[in-house]
Amino acid sequence: MEEVLKFAEENKDQNLQELLTFLSIPSVSTQPEHKSDVKKAAQWLAANMEEAGLENIKIIENGGHPLVYSDWLHAGDNAPTVLIYGHYDVQPAEPFELWNSPPFEPQLRDDFIYARGVSDDKGQLFIHVKAVEAYLKTSGKLPVNVKFIVEGEEEIGGESLEKFIPQNKELLAADVTLISDTAMLSREQPAIVYSLRGNVYTFLDITGPERDLHSGSYGGAINNPLNALGHIIAALKDEDGHILIPGFYDKVRPLSEEERAKLKEVPFDEAVWLKESGAPQSWGEADFSIKERLGVRPTLDVHGIIGGYTGPGRKTILPSSVHAKISMRLVPDQDPEEIAKLYEEYVKEITPPSVNVKVTICSTSVPTISEMHSPAMSAASNAYESVFGCKPVYLREGGSIPVVGEFQDVLGLESVMTGFGLPNDRIHSPNERFYLPNFYKGVETIIHFLNQYADLYAGDDK
Amino acid sequence: MEEVLKFAEENKDQNLQELLTFLSIPSVSTQPEHKSDVKKAAQWLAANMEEAGLENIKIIENGGHPLVYSDWLHAGDNAPTVLIYGHYDVQPAEPFELWNSPPFEPQLRDDFIYARGVSDDKGQLFIHVKAVEAYLKTSGKLPVNVKFIVEGEEEIGGESLEKFIPQNKELLAADVTLISDTAMLSREQPAIVYSLRGNVYTFLDITGPERDLHSGSYGGAINNPLNALGHIIAALKDEDGHILIPGFYDKVRPLSEEERAKLKEVPFDEAVWLKESGAPQSWGEADFSIKERLGVRPTLDVHGIIGGYTGPGRKTILPSSVHAKISMRLVPDQDPEEIAKLYEEYVKEITPPSVNVKVTICSTSVPTISEMHSPAMSAASNAYESVFGCKPVYLREGGSIPVVGEFQDVLGLESVMTGFGLPNDRIHSPNERFYLPNFYKGVETIIHFLNQYADLYAGDDK
Repeated sequence: MEEVLKFAEENKDQNLQELLTFLSIPSVSTQPEHKSDVKKAAQWLAANMEEAGLENIKIIENGGHPLVYSDWLHAGDNAPTVLIYGHYDVQPAEPFELWNSPPFEPQLRDDFIYARGVSDDKGQLFIHVKAVEAYLKTSGKLPVNVKFIVEGEEEIGGESLEKFIPQNKELLAADVTLISDTAMLSREQPAIVYSLRGNVYTFLDITGPERDLHSGSYGGAINNPLNALGHIIAALKDEDGHILIPGFYDKVRPLSEEERAKLKEVPFDEAVWLKESGAPQSWGEADFSIKERLGVRPTLDVHGIIGGYTGPGRKTILPSSVHAKISMRLVPDQDPEEIAKLYEEYVKEITPPSVNVKVTICSTSVPTISEMHSPAMSAASNAYESVFGCKPVYLREGGSIPVVGEFQDVLGLESVMTGFGLPNDRIHSPNERFYLPNFYKGVETIIHFLNQYADLYAGDDK
Repeated sequence: MEEVLKFAEENKDQNLQELLTFLSIPSVSTQPEHKSDVKKAAQWLAANMEEAGLENIKIIENGGHPLVYSDWLHAGDNAPTVLIYGHYDVQPAEPFELWNSPPFEPQLRDDFIYARGVSDDKGQLFIHVKAVEAYLKTSGKLPVNVKFIVEGEEEIGGESLEKFIPQNKELLAADVTLISDTAMLSREQPAIVYSLRGNVYTFLDITGPERDLHSGSYGGAINNPLNALGHIIAALKDEDGHILIPGFYDKVRPLSEEERAKLKEVPFDEAVWLKESGAPQSWGEADFSIKERLGVRPTLDVHGIIGGYTGPGRKTILPSSVHAKISMRLVPDQDPEEIAKLYEEYVKEITPPSVNVKVTICSTSVPTISEMHSPAMSAASNAYESVFGCKPVYLREGGSIPVVGEFQDVLGLESVMTGFGLPNDRIHSPNERFYLPNFYKGVETIIHFLNQYADLYAGDDK
């Protein structure tokens, strides 16, 4: 361990230079003009992994942008296997004019690296490669088996990996998944995300008359799809944020006593949070704290509506149809397929026969949760403490990372989410950045984690 | 009379060709890109009136799109004066792809003229010009004095005319107003509209967070303007069509016994009407018949909503803002200013403090009602009977013609509304049309009306 940490310390500059090269490849997955750059980033990463001492390097074409796989599997029969996930694709950098330095010419300013994708997720992903390298270039071995699966489509839905996982259960078999694609609470306070909300995303199309009707000639005797939509939205969730779909909450797992205690430990300044949101007030289920509303409770939101006349001025019609996008964020142990069914049935039930409704379920992802005291979670906690000097807080995150759901559902793996980003890294926005000391500390933390996990796994009953 | 009618008969083709030219000018008053087309339509109409023998032609710029005035005032001191009103502006034609022939390239198919504005109101307005022309080009005089006031802003609130009327009471002084901007019940059954609904047209702008927020990171703890809008819409009108604004119905005048009897006489085939509407079911206040819901009862409709992400696919945001267009149709004796105030107060009351709402009252118009047995009403009834072979029915019309309210309120004039459209003319919708035989019979009917009105006015006590 000493030698491994020393290697990492001595190679800080070298590691940084490599990361800057990685960041300079504009691997924007959603923009067709960057298709070859995305491939170049995959190739660069594969070569770097090989140089690090990883084996069985594969660049896998599975329809879209390539996956990168590598492993090192010589830790012995009794050692556990860690599946490390990350993504090398990035969000578009537009609008370029809002960047203080070009998004694909990384710049160091005031202890931050500024570049598109540096926090989400190239910088965080690269931490794992460099931690593994430190072991392999010193002791020549790792305390655990390691597999990397890295995708180039995280920002566009992750289809290639979603198809790949069920087809390659053997290749990806492991004991736990390790992911760094989240944030710490602050520079001093590390955080482990142990639960993610799932999602059911839907379209509603409500149609009434076959064409737009004059509201003077028909208003009052023909139902109006926009008015009907208002009633449907109001019947989905009450004004206090309680969802009214029968059975919706049946499988919501209440917080355990320990979770409740851990949640209390998470520092939260409501005034700062509210100011940052730009909303006039906080809002939601009165029986739950804001922290609970954000991660522990499921929710339902309308993301977009378009219908009727939306140009300038006035037009007096009963519109023929209206389109709405509505999604639900789910929490353990809600089943997205079951919720989608309850939702669809309920919407059909509350839609009056004077209009027609079509419900489209666009996508679903499962909520995930990891046991807080597993050997891997304890290893992560200890590793953070060794490097940052304090224990991490445990977070239920309000967003969704669909691949974590697949690891859980298809491979049976819990995920340990050890983020090294910061809340204000401006991911998806201009001037994305990553706190440089966290890059170095991240490598140290993962070195500790791999060592700790081997020990705790060996000491565990299973 | 014989000679006048013969002239009209002999000039059918010529009149039609002129109308087709008028229709080909895209005088869409609400779209700034058509501003010069609106003016062109005014100029074309003024020239046509001059050619018809009308005098004192004026194109009046009063802030917005021009008004067109003309008159012929040589019928003698004891003859009454008829103020003929119409509008030469039209609704937008969008969506163009639903038209079977281009909206501004009029086409004749199966006895119908297809074009935007042909029924509402260019075709109907033009009937009056051609009826007057038939007199002036034969006998050289009219049995009554005639004034035309035609506007180019009917579809956008009629502001120029609204300002013009109180400033020009002398110029517009008359005994009655004659308007053809409504429909017959069927090809065989003429109808006189004796009451119109008024209108209060509003915009709602609901804003929440200052920018779109990630629904995973904020959903459940920050209110969503689109969900809030759903609740506001649901709270404005219940699912059965009853409006929930306190005090809204207080001044609604109940039907008189004669009105109830006349309403009974109006033939109405609900199945046919429903099929024609293209809606899956009829709908509305259970305590009132469909005929009552359409003309006797006030109503409230949402005409358009746009907010959040409305492009293809999915985006998971709490939108920053949403825009809705909502109007109320009013009946005698509701006061639009009072209703607008009740509405605004109620919307503010039901909007939760977690979002902000801005209510814009765009326009208001009063509901109107005319005495059924006046000389002009009797003249219209006789004229219809002469041409169509049966007496007209008397209707309370669901639509609004705001200027009729001003004629009533400012000039003290009741209006005789002799429509020649048909219920299925698709006004405001794609494939608007006008039944060609009604164009010709309309000219005949107005020729009869002017003659009859002179006689009945002379025989009347006043």
